[in-house]
Amino acid sequence: MTDQQTSTEPYLLATLSKNVLSLTLNRPRQRNPLSSHMIAALKAAIEAANENPQVRVVVIKGSGPVFSAGHDLREMSHKEDESREDHEARVRQVLLDCSRMMLAILHSPKAIIASVHATATAAGCQLVSACDLAISSEDAMFCTPGVNIGTFCTTPLVGVGRNIHRKHAMELALTGDLFSAEDAMRFGLVNRVVPAAELEEQTLALAEKIASRSAQGIRAGKAAFYRQIDMPIEQAFEYANESMLEALLSPDASEGTRAFLEKRAPHWGEA
Amino acid sequence: MTDQQTSTEPYLLATLSKNVLSLTLNRPRQRNPLSSHMIAALKAAIEAANENPQVRVVVIKGSGPVFSAGHDLREMSHKEDESREDHEARVRQVLLDCSRMMLAILHSPKAIIASVHATATAAGCQLVSACDLAISSEDAMFCTPGVNIGTFCTTPLVGVGRNIHRKHAMELALTGDLFSAEDAMRFGLVNRVVPAAELEEQTLALAEKIASRSAQGIRAGKAAFYRQIDMPIEQAFEYANESMLEALLSPDASEGTRAFLEKRAPHWGEA
Amino acid sequence: MTDQQTSTEPYLLATLSKNVLSLTLNRPRQRNPLSSHMIAALKAAIEAANENPQVRVVVIKGSGPVFSAGHDLREMSHKEDESREDHEARVRQVLLDCSRMMLAILHSPKAIIASVHATATAAGCQLVSACDLAISSEDAMFCTPGVNIGTFCTTPLVGVGRNIHRKHAMELALTGDLFSAEDAMRFGLVNRVVPAAELEEQTLALAEKIASRSAQGIRAGKAAFYRQIDMPIEQAFEYANESMLEALLSPDASEGTRAFLEKRAPHWGEA
Repeated sequence: MTDQQTSTEPYLLATLSKNVLSLTLNRPRQRNPLSSHMIAALKAAIEAANENPQVRVVVIKGSGPVFSAGHDLREMSHKEDESREDHEARVRQVLLDCSRMMLAILHSPKAIIASVHATATAAGCQLVSACDLAISSEDAMFCTPGVNIGTFCTTPLVGVGRNIHRKHAMELALTGDLFSAEDAMRFGLVNRVVPAAELEEQTLALAEKIASRSAQGIRAGKAAFYRQIDMPIEQAFEYANESMLEALLSPDASEGTRAFLEKRAPHWGEA
Repeated sequence: MTDQQTSTEPYLLATLSKNVLSLTLNRPRQRNPLSSHMIAALKAAIEAANENPQVRVVVIKGSGPVFSAGHDLREMSHKEDESREDHEARVRQVLLDCSRMMLAILHSPKAIIASVHATATAAGCQLVSACDLAISSEDAMFCTPGVNIGTFCTTPLVGVGRNIHRKHAMELALTGDLFSAEDAMRFGLVNRVVPAAELEEQTLALAEKIASRSAQGIRAGKAAFYRQIDMPIEQAFEYANESMLEALLSPDASEGTRAFLEKRAPHWGEA
Repeated sequence: MTDQQTSTEPYLLATLSKNVLSLTLNRPRQRNPLSSHMIAALKAAIEAANENPQVRVVVIKGSGPVFSAGHDLREMSHKEDESREDHEARVRQVLLDCSRMMLAILHSPKAIIASVHATATAAGCQLVSACDLAISSEDAMFCTPGVNIGTFCTTPLVGVGRNIHRKHAMELALTGDLFSAEDAMRFGLVNRVVPAAELEEQTLALAEKIASRSAQGIRAGKAAFYRQIDMPIEQAFEYANESMLEALLSPDASEGTRAFLEKRAPHWGEA
């Protein structure tokens, strides 16, 4: 049994302030692997946030020396007393749970921001891609290094490949190299690069700004964006028009427009 | 009744020179909103240009302090004497007409260039995304600020989201912030950024260059591009090959190839 | 009969060193056109490489003054003694063969790198887009100039349009202009730009790095990437998970993980 499994620390630290829920991956000594426990903790935390009207924005960050090292290689490897079938079934379940957690981020009605320090590796890089926005410290590094151990970061590239151009995705995956925050910015994988000392402050400033907006508007808009972007454009317009119509007729839209015209702060409905 | 509706000025100013049709949004005092009248004027102007052999390229620009402020918020809001059903039906119609106008730009056989000064907001930003090319002044700003009034720029993101990476689209929509021309260039929303004083000249230079080419080649090529890009790649090749074949066997191709080999200017067929 | 057809030189020069197969387009005087002979030679070379366990990475480059001038305009044009039907059938076949060659690159189990010097034109530009990675000399130029001769680079845009943003693709195609290596880098069409004098060395360094990895991991990962990227994201995850599972349970993964933990070089299975 690994340190990770025996630790009594929670997998995630959660703090809620000004309607921003900060979730901190909390296995620093193991480099915050996306183990089955961590995946379950993240998915549960997102699902709880979805139902919590106090939460308007979620921030995902890591504690310790890295953001996340990706899957837990020890957990994925074959155990001595395990049949091939059991191993396969177990790894399939981890992959399935991991993709469901990534989709839970995509489908969450709350805006979700990755705040990346140090290194985001493999599934850790995919975690960045799954968030709506990403902010990174200047010294952060990004990699999908499956090729270095005889595999290929095929599942991370589902998310990363939908964030950035194909040649950049293949460069990440075929070289397995560490890419700088500047590269990640150039690729479109992160939105902003800030000095390491300002990462927390700037992440919260961005999160609080978004948290000050109508949570209902964001809920509907985020869902519509990821749905329409996979459609042919004519169908996308039809779908988006209905969502836009509903948003324009919502109580928050009336309040927002009135507040704008009256030059006062709006009072939004529940998240 | 608003100033906009009572004005006797045309919604669009149209000038045709050297086969370039310049359409200028002409409600400067109202900040060139995409009101139902403006949408109808733009769609009609595009459809007329489609049938006009004198027009080889269309430029869309704005007069006055902004490029376009997006939908007319006054028009979209609930009228005092209006039932909820009537309001909904009216807003749905504006959204439908607006998306049809955007698709008319996409499906127009003519190359269409947005020439952006000052601010392009919400549906105004979508108008930029719908054009084949965009050129912007250095001081131009771009935003999709629905979140600021309790909604979300869901329909603008149909176009914008197909121009730029997802994280950039979500940054525009979730923050509602003004982004600089430099940001728009970095995102891929505009092709070129030029000093404000050179915007008109450089827009026309670009438009006239494209207008000097075979309009038939552009007609077929533009249509094929937007159609094949939504297909799986194998199907895209099949479709594009037939379009390419037709282009290569066209009279304009024979003339173009001969002119190229004879080092003379080509004489193209009708637009 | 053209010089190209009468030359006794092979269409492609092939050298194999350190598991990297370098294929050099070898019609320098004709500017390496993608004639039907060149297309056939490239497709045959890729297919042979697919079956050759010595080949782990393929590099495609050009000899002489340009990388590739695209289709052979002389071959595509109407012959004096040819019926319209025969001409059409012949050109259709060239286009079909060309798209099959591009798809052969995409579907090849080996990583394929374009190494671009001087100019990559039209189908030559598409060849760059079809490769997994591209490295370019600082002085290289890229263009899709069909509009200059009365057509439109419709088929090149199938590949180019899946590499870069729409506005950039349309800028290439509507202007027909030469774009710099810096532009190609900004667009995402090439991964790296290096001084001309270092192009060969840096290409081989990149190729040899990738050749040192598990060929089986790359085979499965490359195939999965291009397949999943055309799917809706939920389906993409399902598909990618099965590919990832197979990779994680492969002998190369066991060996790679062991070598990593034992801090030694891995011994991979056959390519």
